[in-house]
Amino acid sequence: MGEIYLDNSATTRVCREAADKVMEIMTETYGNPSSLHTKGFQAERELTAARETVAGMLGVLPEELYFTSGGTESNNLALFGAAHAQRRRGNHIVTTAMEHSSIMNTMKQLEKEGYSVTYLKPDKEGKIRPEQIFEAVTPDTILVSMMYVNNEVGTILPLEAVPQAIADANAPALFHADAVQAFGKIPVKPKKLKIDLLSVSAHKIHGPKGVGAFFLRKGVRIVPRAYGGGQEKDIRPGTEAMPLIAGLGAAVKALPDTAEEYAAMKKLSTYCRKRLSEIDGVTLNSPEDSLPYIVNFSAGNVRAETMLHFLSDKEIYVSSGSACSKGKESRILTAMGLPKSRISSALRISFSRYSTAEDVDGLVDALKEGLDSLTSKPL
Amino acid sequence: MGEIYLDNSATTRVCREAADKVMEIMTETYGNPSSLHTKGFQAERELTAARETVAGMLGVLPEELYFTSGGTESNNLALFGAAHAQRRRGNHIVTTAMEHSSIMNTMKQLEKEGYSVTYLKPDKEGKIRPEQIFEAVTPDTILVSMMYVNNEVGTILPLEAVPQAIADANAPALFHADAVQAFGKIPVKPKKLKIDLLSVSAHKIHGPKGVGAFFLRKGVRIVPRAYGGGQEKDIRPGTEAMPLIAGLGAAVKALPDTAEEYAAMKKLSTYCRKRLSEIDGVTLNSPEDSLPYIVNFSAGNVRAETMLHFLSDKEIYVSSGSACSKGKESRILTAMGLPKSRISSALRISFSRYSTAEDVDGLVDALKEGLDSLTSKPL
Repeated sequence: MGEIYLDNSATTRVCREAADKVMEIMTETYGNPSSLHTKGFQAERELTAARETVAGMLGVLPEELYFTSGGTESNNLALFGAAHAQRRRGNHIVTTAMEHSSIMNTMKQLEKEGYSVTYLKPDKEGKIRPEQIFEAVTPDTILVSMMYVNNEVGTILPLEAVPQAIADANAPALFHADAVQAFGKIPVKPKKLKIDLLSVSAHKIHGPKGVGAFFLRKGVRIVPRAYGGGQEKDIRPGTEAMPLIAGLGAAVKALPDTAEEYAAMKKLSTYCRKRLSEIDGVTLNSPEDSLPYIVNFSAGNVRAETMLHFLSDKEIYVSSGSACSKGKESRILTAMGLPKSRISSALRISFSRYSTAEDVDGLVDALKEGLDSLTSKPL
Repeated sequence: MGEIYLDNSATTRVCREAADKVMEIMTETYGNPSSLHTKGFQAERELTAARETVAGMLGVLPEELYFTSGGTESNNLALFGAAHAQRRRGNHIVTTAMEHSSIMNTMKQLEKEGYSVTYLKPDKEGKIRPEQIFEAVTPDTILVSMMYVNNEVGTILPLEAVPQAIADANAPALFHADAVQAFGKIPVKPKKLKIDLLSVSAHKIHGPKGVGAFFLRKGVRIVPRAYGGGQEKDIRPGTEAMPLIAGLGAAVKALPDTAEEYAAMKKLSTYCRKRLSEIDGVTLNSPEDSLPYIVNFSAGNVRAETMLHFLSDKEIYVSSGSACSKGKESRILTAMGLPKSRISSALRISFSRYSTAEDVDGLVDALKEGLDSLTSKPL
């Protein structure tokens, strides 16, 4: 049996289409898009094509899309950029207690700068209710930032409530969405949800690590985080990471139909949840209506790291929560109020379009074996 | 005759070694270095190896080296990071009027934040004298930032004067060097020059666009520009751009011996200067002792853009100054005080280790032809 890679929310294998495109740009179309000669123009065409592809997927204008080095940079640019631009209009920011650390730690920094941040608490299922948003937004709110899909349990957040909450409070707030775990998996349409700023990453959808996109609605002003040679309309200067940007474009082009793929994932996820439920001592942490790509569960009284290593030795790769938290106890599951024992034994499976029912079977068999041999038994 | 690419200071073709490495990381060793399983550990080993390679080239400790998205990010991180960390120790910054726009425009921003910046003016040859540095640094100076090699004319700046100037003034200043155009071409050894922060980019040395390195001397504190999942010791968070980072490592490994390559370039540059001097109406703007990789010259009364397009049609690629300035009149040549006519007709040739005397011959022939057909003649 070969590798079973079920850690696709941490990162994915780059698909052939994207990898080939990266190679082509590195060795053939290697010009600098700012150069005023054919080699430069060729590169600029690749830049434009990638921008149109990603913008098309999001249903936004190409000129509303900027390339960054990834989700973390997009999130930092969104939060600092919006907060600093809105400084004179108010002081209050709304987010949730289940955001990625690139949001959470930027919020902590904004608090140090004097902003007041409200963190909406998820319930035991990892859900945020629309009413929480309506209660939190005030006339002083300058920014609401919320993830589409939580990266650890897969719950889908009620973003559709945000524009109404902002309107009801008559707040000057901009609306940022972290779509890193949602992009390519559910329809992400910023215009429909009146989103002003949105973050996307390539390496969660079989694109390369080191590149992301940032949507900034036309007419919305933010303060840039970097200054330089004018690239990306001064919003994000620096020689464009052409191999990666074109690779992101190719990865987006290679995405299967969202609805069809979602249906296939739902089937796989349902099968996985059924098989996991059959195992003694396994408790599911992801509610049934969460994104099918992510299944979080707790396995007996075996510490997650122990089980992770046991599985890794069998070439089965899953994670304990977010890769970025690197083994620390899950901040998300803690915010959900789960008991300590369930947090410390929590594992996350995350699928991609290359995942199969056989992968699930392999995992379930190994998990059973692991629980048998690792669970501390009474003598 | 094939393409003649003489715009290597704008960007380079990725070398085979780096391109292959990028491919391997995208499709095989594609794990997230933060993941706690074999796929993650494999990625982390690649990260460590690349860090050791680049650190080794610079003669610094691996733990003093951080990966960024490129020169612009490294420069921004250095300037904002150092200025903000030193805010209470003084208010004055020293730099030159011939820096890259990622330094220049960040300095303008720091001025808006209240810092006072001194810009040392180059002479007609594009040189800065050590005495200018000694005069500029005061007890209030918190940062000196200077490029190793100018990107448009190739002059080498007297960085060796900076530590003494700081000591003489008893200033609390940190010392940042922008080594983007120097790295891999002359010995760049931050420890020898008592440099505290240094910026490097991959795509100027046949590595991929979208990745750079940042040296931060052990014990020196800066304020990060981004917040996230703790990668790069919180100095530069975000999932590591593994394909590019490993590609940078491979590009550095593939670099020829610096001294040998310098000698070869000196020979090529001398040949090029000789051939250019033979052309009526050509004036060299790069002094003889500048970095041989860069030759800047003015060609008759033909506008640079016109000549650029003429050459581009023949598949000969050079530039008018920095790619980042995209056709605007050169800020550097203007600071050097050259007459308007010489600025507007200025072209930059920049070599790489793949450049040959035949490339120079091809350029010189085309240039003559261009001058003949494009020069406005009296009727």
